[in-house]
Amino acid sequence: MIINMNEGATEQEIQHVIERVREAGFRAHVTRGTERCIVAAVGSGGKRHELEALAAAAGVAEVVPIAQPFKLVSRQVKPEGTVVDVGGVKIGDGSFVVIAGPCSVESREQIFSTAEAVKVAGARLLRGGAYKPRTSPYEFQGLGVEALRLLSEVRKHVGLPVVTEIMSTEDTDLICGHADMLQVGARNMQNFALLRRLASVKKPILLKRGPSASVKEWLLAAEYLLAGGNPNVVLCERGIKTFETEMRNTLDLAAIALARELSHLPVIADPSHGTGRRSLIAPTSRAAAALGADGIIVEVHPCPERALSDGAQSLDFSGFKAVMESLAEPLRAAPVSHHRINRTAAAN
Amino acid sequence: MIINMNEGATEQEIQHVIERVREAGFRAHVTRGTERCIVAAVGSGGKRHELEALAAAAGVAEVVPIAQPFKLVSRQVKPEGTVVDVGGVKIGDGSFVVIAGPCSVESREQIFSTAEAVKVAGARLLRGGAYKPRTSPYEFQGLGVEALRLLSEVRKHVGLPVVTEIMSTEDTDLICGHADMLQVGARNMQNFALLRRLASVKKPILLKRGPSASVKEWLLAAEYLLAGGNPNVVLCERGIKTFETEMRNTLDLAAIALARELSHLPVIADPSHGTGRRSLIAPTSRAAAALGADGIIVEVHPCPERALSDGAQSLDFSGFKAVMESLAEPLRAAPVSHHRINRTAAAN
Amino acid sequence: MIINMNEGATEQEIQHVIERVREAGFRAHVTRGTERCIVAAVGSGGKRHELEALAAAAGVAEVVPIAQPFKLVSRQVKPEGTVVDVGGVKIGDGSFVVIAGPCSVESREQIFSTAEAVKVAGARLLRGGAYKPRTSPYEFQGLGVEALRLLSEVRKHVGLPVVTEIMSTEDTDLICGHADMLQVGARNMQNFALLRRLASVKKPILLKRGPSASVKEWLLAAEYLLAGGNPNVVLCERGIKTFETEMRNTLDLAAIALARELSHLPVIADPSHGTGRRSLIAPTSRAAAALGADGIIVEVHPCPERALSDGAQSLDFSGFKAVMESLAEPLRAAPVSHHRINRTAAAN
Amino acid sequence: MIINMNEGATEQEIQHVIERVREAGFRAHVTRGTERCIVAAVGSGGKRHELEALAAAAGVAEVVPIAQPFKLVSRQVKPEGTVVDVGGVKIGDGSFVVIAGPCSVESREQIFSTAEAVKVAGARLLRGGAYKPRTSPYEFQGLGVEALRLLSEVRKHVGLPVVTEIMSTEDTDLICGHADMLQVGARNMQNFALLRRLASVKKPILLKRGPSASVKEWLLAAEYLLAGGNPNVVLCERGIKTFETEMRNTLDLAAIALARELSHLPVIADPSHGTGRRSLIAPTSRAAAALGADGIIVEVHPCPERALSDGAQSLDFSGFKAVMESLAEPLRAAPVSHHRINRTAAAN
Repeated sequence: MIINMNEGATEQEIQHVIERVREAGFRAHVTRGTERCIVAAVGSGGKRHELEALAAAAGVAEVVPIAQPFKLVSRQVKPEGTVVDVGGVKIGDGSFVVIAGPCSVESREQIFSTAEAVKVAGARLLRGGAYKPRTSPYEFQGLGVEALRLLSEVRKHVGLPVVTEIMSTEDTDLICGHADMLQVGARNMQNFALLRRLASVKKPILLKRGPSASVKEWLLAAEYLLAGGNPNVVLCERGIKTFETEMRNTLDLAAIALARELSHLPVIADPSHGTGRRSLIAPTSRAAAALGADGIIVEVHPCPERALSDGAQSLDFSGFKAVMESLAEPLRAAPVSHHRINRTAAAN
Repeated sequence: MIINMNEGATEQEIQHVIERVREAGFRAHVTRGTERCIVAAVGSGGKRHELEALAAAAGVAEVVPIAQPFKLVSRQVKPEGTVVDVGGVKIGDGSFVVIAGPCSVESREQIFSTAEAVKVAGARLLRGGAYKPRTSPYEFQGLGVEALRLLSEVRKHVGLPVVTEIMSTEDTDLICGHADMLQVGARNMQNFALLRRLASVKKPILLKRGPSASVKEWLLAAEYLLAGGNPNVVLCERGIKTFETEMRNTLDLAAIALARELSHLPVIADPSHGTGRRSLIAPTSRAAAALGADGIIVEVHPCPERALSDGAQSLDFSGFKAVMESLAEPLRAAPVSHHRINRTAAAN
Repeated sequence: MIINMNEGATEQEIQHVIERVREAGFRAHVTRGTERCIVAAVGSGGKRHELEALAAAAGVAEVVPIAQPFKLVSRQVKPEGTVVDVGGVKIGDGSFVVIAGPCSVESREQIFSTAEAVKVAGARLLRGGAYKPRTSPYEFQGLGVEALRLLSEVRKHVGLPVVTEIMSTEDTDLICGHADMLQVGARNMQNFALLRRLASVKKPILLKRGPSASVKEWLLAAEYLLAGGNPNVVLCERGIKTFETEMRNTLDLAAIALARELSHLPVIADPSHGTGRRSLIAPTSRAAAALGADGIIVEVHPCPERALSDGAQSLDFSGFKAVMESLAEPLRAAPVSHHRINRTAAAN
Repeated sequence: MIINMNEGATEQEIQHVIERVREAGFRAHVTRGTERCIVAAVGSGGKRHELEALAAAAGVAEVVPIAQPFKLVSRQVKPEGTVVDVGGVKIGDGSFVVIAGPCSVESREQIFSTAEAVKVAGARLLRGGAYKPRTSPYEFQGLGVEALRLLSEVRKHVGLPVVTEIMSTEDTDLICGHADMLQVGARNMQNFALLRRLASVKKPILLKRGPSASVKEWLLAAEYLLAGGNPNVVLCERGIKTFETEMRNTLDLAAIALARELSHLPVIADPSHGTGRRSLIAPTSRAAAALGADGIIVEVHPCPERALSDGAQSLDFSGFKAVMESLAEPLRAAPVSHHRINRTAAAN
């Protein structure tokens, strides 16, 4: 159950609701937004009808029953979509935001040339890894602080806000000083210590879906962020693990529509990791747009063959330009036609 | 290796190539199309350079090396897309063909009213099950011959060619007498006895991907049909099994683009089975169109709550109309914009 | 609901029960065993309490409510395990039956030498493929009738009953004339036309689990056989498809214990297909025994490197002997020890 | 390539090898054990033959080529199995170690009574969660520091070393002060920041396999610990995510045998999480023993119905005792029998 308070609800009214929630046998989880306050009654075994009665209490706008285990991220609680502001770029406002850049920041030349190329082609945000989660300890792990400084610089020069991944709670302040949006990688989607830490930062979070996380688990990971106080979360579908071997992952495009149905948070797709195949990036990006995604995040590198990570799925500059152009093409021959049926005639 | 013969190649020239293929240590697999003949050299351990030398033989147009295990379905062998004619409706010609109808034929009234409604809304082909593959022996198994007769009737009255599923080799002649296209269901994708039988019929085949089949295995199932003499195959992605529980299956939309890249056969999507959720049919249908699919197949029922099978994922008539209309809407805000970068200025 | 009739129930009593089941709004599914008759009330929407009242009807032994969708295979209906007789060898009687032999029958010499070797090492049944389900139409498809004749011969000479796969309803009579047990392969687990045909044969069936079938779906496939009149079914777990790449499949060993809990049918394991790795056959066979499996089926070939199919997972004769010996070894150091706790003493 | 140095190799000899590794185009990764030093040459593109030549260098015992991406965990590098000492209890020495206790520490009474019961029944180590990774932020998250103190106490009183989960790098020192072994949970298997931190602690690590991690990825996670300096790692298989719904996860028992084949590290199984079904714990524990596992970890609670987490899969005290007893039972009827074949006689 969610108790939405009125905009002008007083502190006293809020406290009264909290007490009644506890008396009914639930824990009260309070989220104070800039405009209004939400009290979530969580737990099982309490008396639901006592909560329903709160609809009549002073200061209460409405009481919303939530069947799903996630509350604050639910579209039932907040029917209108959330718009997340990333350094001035809005995600979730109806536009289609393209985030592009190299898997890893490798050098000043690499990140500057890429930032310029993707901006010219239409990207609105720049991605670039400073700390890389690598399956093997012997693989390139990112340039770390040096990469963060380069990202700060290129942001000023080219004018694109920057997204980069955070892997450790200890790096939080450092990365917040350089980036406009912090990415939680797929392998860390259920790193709850990290989620709790990021719930308290002022920067928006890009939350990737884990490779074997269900849509519910993904939304519950986002719930950690919202419940902890950070409402600025963008969801990112990046492919799940299946038995298929021709693609690196199975990009679960339908999950974009499902996440948008269940939640008010913006959703984007990562076709680079999701397919691992350069040739599939344009068609799956178009599919994401068709499904109502709020954007995509793609890997672009000046020379993919020489990339220190993820070369096989990275686009070069002309490849990225082609993807952007394909996004502007209309859908295949609209099928609607208006036949008339003359049943009597047909029967003859 | 594939040896494409010239259009005017003589039988003698073809026989010469076949002999040489065998001498080189391969089996020769001959497909005689209406216009030209293709000799596939299959097996391993033969002398590849002897095959390459055949490029110079009389009547040979070209010798194409094929790395993939599938040969005749490969786009390497036939770069232009195949167009399959289903009772006059072309699949693969650049249009987006919508196949619609009930999961099962349940009554004359049901199939006639559905056929009329879907035709008016823009469907080009009618689907309807006569024999239903059911997980439990106690579930409704379809009306069988009675359903086939109703399909024949409704085809004449409404003027839509008919697609229906075949489950048993023994029903082949019967179903060919009533339907315009035979569907091989997902559970039968690797029913090789059935594939071999259908390779010899004159009707086109709709080949659904198995719920745990890789794209390669799917194309190899199609290869059984082509290798056996039936070139009229349409592939259908219908969702794979994963750990996700909110959707009936995971519709592998990216596989549509991959199948089109690897094969010249038309590809359609089945968003009804692929998602099992009525609300996801419109967005995933749009995504299929964005990925270059040649069409979709969707379940429509006059009253989904009363359907004898698959009610939860069936559209009613107005729901189907809405899906058709959504297919005509443009993609979300095209993102391309042409910023100019003034690097010096930005640095100030 | 299942209505178990008394052993001596008359035809009249049975018919009365059937009528009452129908009046209550269910379909009546009657299975006449050699000793007693079972009436299953299937369908939903009927009046359950009217069925319960049948406990008092003449000739009725008991009325058993079944929550699961499978009825006749359920251990609720028949608590004692079923024993299946395969040419005199009992599966399910508490012994551990090893079925061994080549993936495919390739020659007289190959099948005779293998049959002798596996018999000497302790195998009780001989496996050998005559018709092979192959992913590609260009792979070796089995020797067909010639292989069946060789199996008949070797059975007489060596004295091992024979198991072989059936892929097509049309081969039923032919294969029944040569084999003691018919195998339904994993890809055909939901080939319902085949299941229906095999429900009417007198030979026992080895039903492999499909690579993406849940345990419930597997049991429902067995239900087709029992409901159609063939009670002699042995279940075989042979590995499911997952994301793992080091093994051909993921052998779902725990499913053996689950299937035995839910059903009275015997269950065996196929570690050869289940792992695809020769080195894992001995340990997983031991695990199957530890889980209560009634046996295993393993691939053995005189010279695995030269096998026409499945060489990588086949054992040679000495490898098979080693697997048999490992099955006789005790479990690792039994952990039970009886410590005494002197809580006061420990606190000092 | 791995260069194993002699036990008495001098620092100068080690430095020489390191320099030559770098000259050959690789990075040198040095692990100094208590007895001898290992230099791993990692990276690609270097000159392998120059490394091979190092076999002749002073102080070098042998040069071992490693095909797998993991090096230090590989059985190729260290053929004999590793024995890990956990507060005096040896894992990997050929015995079968049972770790038991509640999912979460809930109260003094609960953890004391459980510790005593499991010790009497034969458990060698006590498990108990202080910090719980929970899918939802609203679920019970563990008692934290209070639980750690109770674990310290109960360890002294009952005399069982303690295993507990660590979720955050920031808790490292605190938990090391209370526990004998630190568990990395399945969701954190690729939390590389945590792995790097735990590589430097003196306590042994229990590394659970991620629910969608391949065996290779699991071993590479262990490689992070060994490469960072902590050789005391025990692997734990706890079930992977598949499409199956009757069990919480699919316990990948065959992976135990595979991990033991590929690596020298001890491997245990977690049948509680792996199956999520109380009735399957005894048979899957026996299977783990049959596969050569070095032990199991199981959940035991005084009153599973009232457990704050994982009640459905927890054993009560008598259930745990029954599991321990089942581990002492012999394998099912050993199948080996030595038939003699008289081929001539059989032919008559």
